Amino acid sequence: MSQTKKIALVVQSGTIDKLYCAFILASTSVAMGWEAHLYFTFWGLQSLVKGAMEKASLPGDYKHLEEAMRKNLERMKYPTPYEMLKRLKQSGLCKVYACTPTMEMFGVKREDLVPEIDDMVGAATFLTIAADANVSMFI
Amino acid sequence: MSQTKKIALVVQSGTIDKLYCAFILASTSVAMGWEAHLYFTFWGLQSLVKGAMEKASLPGDYKHLEEAMRKNLERMKYPTPYEMLKRLKQSGLCKVYACTPTMEMFGVKREDLVPEIDDMVGAATFLTIAADANVSMFI
Amino acid sequence: MSQTKKIALVVQSGTIDKLYCAFILASTSVAMGWEAHLYFTFWGLQSLVKGAMEKASLPGDYKHLEEAMRKNLERMKYPTPYEMLKRLKQSGLCKVYACTPTMEMFGVKREDLVPEIDDMVGAATFLTIAADANVSMFI
Repeated sequence: MSQTKKIALVVQSGTIDKLYCAFILASTSVAMGWEAHLYFTFWGLQSLVKGAMEKASLPGDYKHLEEAMRKNLERMKYPTPYEMLKRLKQSGLCKVYACTPTMEMFGVKREDLVPEIDDMVGAATFLTIAADANVSMFI
Repeated sequence: MSQTKKIALVVQSGTIDKLYCAFILASTSVAMGWEAHLYFTFWGLQSLVKGAMEKASLPGDYKHLEEAMRKNLERMKYPTPYEMLKRLKQSGLCKVYACTPTMEMFGVKREDLVPEIDDMVGAATFLTIAADANVSMFI
Repeated sequence: MSQTKKIALVVQSGTIDKLYCAFILASTSVAMGWEAHLYFTFWGLQSLVKGAMEKASLPGDYKHLEEAMRKNLERMKYPTPYEMLKRLKQSGLCKVYACTPTMEMFGVKREDLVPEIDDMVGAATFLTIAADANVSMFI
């Protein structure tokens, strides 16, 4: 049994609140020396299309809170979701997977996606990793 | 300790994107010889009402992507969510639970539901199973 | 290794359906003698602002079901989400955490929040607890 702790997240959402949750959980894990495995599917996968994550916004029900949140994030000098993803990759402890069935369902090609992706895989690869993760979540 | 690996999912959502996520994770688990335990609650439970799953659609925020997704699914000859549920049951490795408190909250009766349900139970039964699952998620 | 079983939930949502899910899973866990650890972030955290949980409602896509659900809950004499939170605290087995980055993002102060909170912490504290939980979920 491996000594390194591990978090395994399915990132199904593409709204900025959920992306922040995924990246905060992953960044915190990595800062504690854990491995972080992020499997992007559906709207999460769509947010990996070049230029898409920069446009991520709050879900419809919470749109009225967006301006205040963005002002506070700026004041806090909080990194954007894409900056967090790039830092995660720089840690050397984070792997990013793109869900191949989602790519086919929405006609997304490898060249459409940001370069931070390690691999394009199906759910079997992810579940094999998640099977002995300390924390696995669906976001 | 059991040798068979196990996935335990709370299916709270009834939109087609989340149902696909639940069934893809469960189908992949079963294909690897794992047990899959699916606990349907709230909108997930509502999608088990006869005829409801066939009408499942994308959430409001993503409605504009529905037509393109459906065309791709047809081209891929991808099974519908209900077909996936039936195949899951045929594997002999998948158990489907209906959440009894949700049934009472929304006035749903056993005879209203599809026949693929194994049992109508409360959260205690599910959590006892999830307690030693390799992967447990809330979808 | 601890003998007491444990559930660790990230409560990211603030709609009444998701709050009920979190509190039903936590209450059931506590009734079985498990520890329950609830980490409130984003809209979940906002629902801990004094007076907010009483106003929690269904998400936009399901608003048309709200009246029927409320009538059934009343008929069942089902506790409100806030009543469930108070009972959870009375069990002595449930810890409630407020996510400090969310508080800063949305300008929420300690005195704005209900008194049931045990601690204001970041994700590291929560993940350290979740690392050996039997069930961890993101709601």
